[in-house]
Amino acid sequence: MKKRLTLLDSGWLTMETPETPMHVGGLMLYALPDNTPENYMQDMLAWLRDAKEVARPFNRKLHARLPMNLDAGWVNDHDIDMEYHVRHAALPKPGRIRELLSLISRVHAQRLDRNHPLWECYLIEGIEGNRFALYVKIHHSLVDGVAAMRILQSRLAMAADQKLPPPWSAEWEDIEREQTGKVKSAKRKAPSVGESVKALGNVAVNLAKLATTSKDSNVKSIYKAPPTVLNKRVHQARRFVAQSWSLSRLKAVAKQYDATLNDVVLAMCGGALREYLLGHSVLPAHSLVANVPVSVRSADQVDEGGNAISAVQVTLGTRIRSASVRIKAIQESMASAKQRLGDMSKVEIDTHTIMTNVPLLAGQVSGLDGRIPVLFNVVVSNVPGPREARFLNGAELLANYPASLIWHGYAMNITVQSYQDNLDFGIIACRESAPKVQRMLDYLENALLELEQEAEKPARQDKTQTVSAQ
Amino acid sequence: MKKRLTLLDSGWLTMETPETPMHVGGLMLYALPDNTPENYMQDMLAWLRDAKEVARPFNRKLHARLPMNLDAGWVNDHDIDMEYHVRHAALPKPGRIRELLSLISRVHAQRLDRNHPLWECYLIEGIEGNRFALYVKIHHSLVDGVAAMRILQSRLAMAADQKLPPPWSAEWEDIEREQTGKVKSAKRKAPSVGESVKALGNVAVNLAKLATTSKDSNVKSIYKAPPTVLNKRVHQARRFVAQSWSLSRLKAVAKQYDATLNDVVLAMCGGALREYLLGHSVLPAHSLVANVPVSVRSADQVDEGGNAISAVQVTLGTRIRSASVRIKAIQESMASAKQRLGDMSKVEIDTHTIMTNVPLLAGQVSGLDGRIPVLFNVVVSNVPGPREARFLNGAELLANYPASLIWHGYAMNITVQSYQDNLDFGIIACRESAPKVQRMLDYLENALLELEQEAEKPARQDKTQTVSAQ
Repeated sequence: MKKRLTLLDSGWLTMETPETPMHVGGLMLYALPDNTPENYMQDMLAWLRDAKEVARPFNRKLHARLPMNLDAGWVNDHDIDMEYHVRHAALPKPGRIRELLSLISRVHAQRLDRNHPLWECYLIEGIEGNRFALYVKIHHSLVDGVAAMRILQSRLAMAADQKLPPPWSAEWEDIEREQTGKVKSAKRKAPSVGESVKALGNVAVNLAKLATTSKDSNVKSIYKAPPTVLNKRVHQARRFVAQSWSLSRLKAVAKQYDATLNDVVLAMCGGALREYLLGHSVLPAHSLVANVPVSVRSADQVDEGGNAISAVQVTLGTRIRSASVRIKAIQESMASAKQRLGDMSKVEIDTHTIMTNVPLLAGQVSGLDGRIPVLFNVVVSNVPGPREARFLNGAELLANYPASLIWHGYAMNITVQSYQDNLDFGIIACRESAPKVQRMLDYLENALLELEQEAEKPARQDKTQTVSAQ
Repeated sequence: MKKRLTLLDSGWLTMETPETPMHVGGLMLYALPDNTPENYMQDMLAWLRDAKEVARPFNRKLHARLPMNLDAGWVNDHDIDMEYHVRHAALPKPGRIRELLSLISRVHAQRLDRNHPLWECYLIEGIEGNRFALYVKIHHSLVDGVAAMRILQSRLAMAADQKLPPPWSAEWEDIEREQTGKVKSAKRKAPSVGESVKALGNVAVNLAKLATTSKDSNVKSIYKAPPTVLNKRVHQARRFVAQSWSLSRLKAVAKQYDATLNDVVLAMCGGALREYLLGHSVLPAHSLVANVPVSVRSADQVDEGGNAISAVQVTLGTRIRSASVRIKAIQESMASAKQRLGDMSKVEIDTHTIMTNVPLLAGQVSGLDGRIPVLFNVVVSNVPGPREARFLNGAELLANYPASLIWHGYAMNITVQSYQDNLDFGIIACRESAPKVQRMLDYLENALLELEQEAEKPARQDKTQTVSAQ
């Protein structure tokens, strides 16, 4: 049984080039349990490969005989080569996070092989501090990348001694049927070809409408993203950097500015990008615009259940010197963008989403040679993760760094995921177009410090009030 | 100064696909010196990266603005990112050759990034038995792959205490100018576009001529290669396997059959491929045909100096059960092929070479969907290497395994290189079209054992004669 691809699925495949692989990844850092035997990692490898039948979507293979995937469809692969999909790797000494990020940068740059189901996993040993890692990459056409990463997370154990099959085992289909009465659908609720074409047809009409509503600041902001070094064509090599920040530290800052956690994340990114661009002597006169995916549920969607994902464009205040003034600008921009989105009808949201979210339409085309202004400068995505500890076959998950995708015109992506008491930042960037992205880690910390320092004065006032209120 | 690509160079680039990367590689195994300090590998890494200026051809970068590389040329890259080109890797435990080959299989499958000079190097630590490895890959368009590997070898030290710059350092241009009065040219003597087009024009005429000379067995053999599992389209994943055999052991066999060393190599390959295809229950009724690169120098080439490389098609005797009968068939086939090549004029050799050696014309086209019979089944290449020990920054070279390229219709390549008292076999194959190629290592040993055993009877006769002659 061959299942035809939707326009969106084949778009991810058609637009894929050696420079713009269309997969997302996740780097999960684990603690080696105490007193592990000599062959612990080899046992872990055997466990990860032990899937006689593989669950959806990890068993779906592309089948196409015509060029450009014109006749492409999905078939189930019943003879999966698990040794191919689950690979064993190690870090050179001294096995610091630096060596780990170096390896992930290389591996994340490589396209998935279309002759196999479009996912790969690396079990990585030799990390200092008694740790190991699992890096998983999944193609965006196979399943919405974030959805697939959530499936992987949901299949981790809640306790060290809980015995479970590996996350891609078909046994999970039975387990989840028992638990919830239905198998978790890994399939993105993608519009059919007909729906997509209809939505595309509305784009021109809606664009014309939006252009005339000049009073709306959020819509206008789409066209104000300044050209920067981050908005050039991308090349094949990547750099992936990652670091965790304490959630309680960010929450304290949020409280002091009466902001959301997401506002603080955006303010950290704004401050860091300001310092990054100043370091390259290319800070533009206009502030950078971030594309921020958000969950929305419009009135005519309530009966469909679930959340729809769209994105808003928000200023990052990079031309503002003061951290406290910058976060205020971000808060206002976000509030205005959300209000506008709340006022939108389903068709408007669809149009907006397609305009701003699908590289097929926005990034790959507009970024081709810079003839069309970019719609935004950088993606900043904030994904909620589990609050309690998770375990992989007995090993405790320490951190979970997302590695997203970039494309022509959009050379950096910052994705943040929460886990327990941390926010895990993962930044993927083109090694050449966005050089030395590792500096962003220091700059994010600097930006957070500035937010903390500039909040001190109002914070002291707040504290007095708080104390008196107690 | 942009230097235009020749037809042959751009052919290697144009025909490159994710399934058929057009680079060759070399895996060099080294001994860790005794009592190495903790940071030995990091010092080695720093030494490998220490090239302020990079020598030709390692500094040549592709420059193209039109699709299909229509305007492609080479430019010198004066700002090479050595951290990008020289990578640090490690094997997971237990660090056997099995884990090493697994890593090389993955890395060799990945295309080089055209935004950088087309070479990469991996320094690999964690190999059991106090060893480390260097894997280098170089694109065929940058320079003839074998020539580039020879340059690397020639820049190894002759003694452990000899201090030299890394093989890609521009300092080598001075060293070699002093040594020989001229810089070693890494450039393949490629025909110009005009010469190539003229030679191509002769192909049709010569093909017609050859087809009528039905008495010539070698020419006929081009059209007798049977279709096998090795002659399908190839996919992205590779398997690389490698092993060394004692040169004296092969020489003893050669002596007993009055054969050349190359005949013995071909007989080992023939016996191994017979067992491999029998194992997959797909041994064809006709014997497989190997494409064997040979050095030739025809009468009208003497004044040009140097050797020309062509290739002959030789039977591998895979339908012959007896090892001793098989090697006789191979010897006769090789003698006949060489005689025919010796009789050829330069134009004929050029035509023959283009017909049988350039994937642009032969492999990629004829293999596209099997509509045209394959010209041969497998490449078996035998490259002479250094007889004396070589050293990399103090570490002794133990073995030097070549990793060549495969393409559509030709899913396996066996390349053999001599070093000191060994022959180092490197086999690269498509993971899917030529499955479980690791078995070839056992089968090669079996084939050599059979040759030794079947030679025993005549060998005893020879020994008596030898003794009486002394």
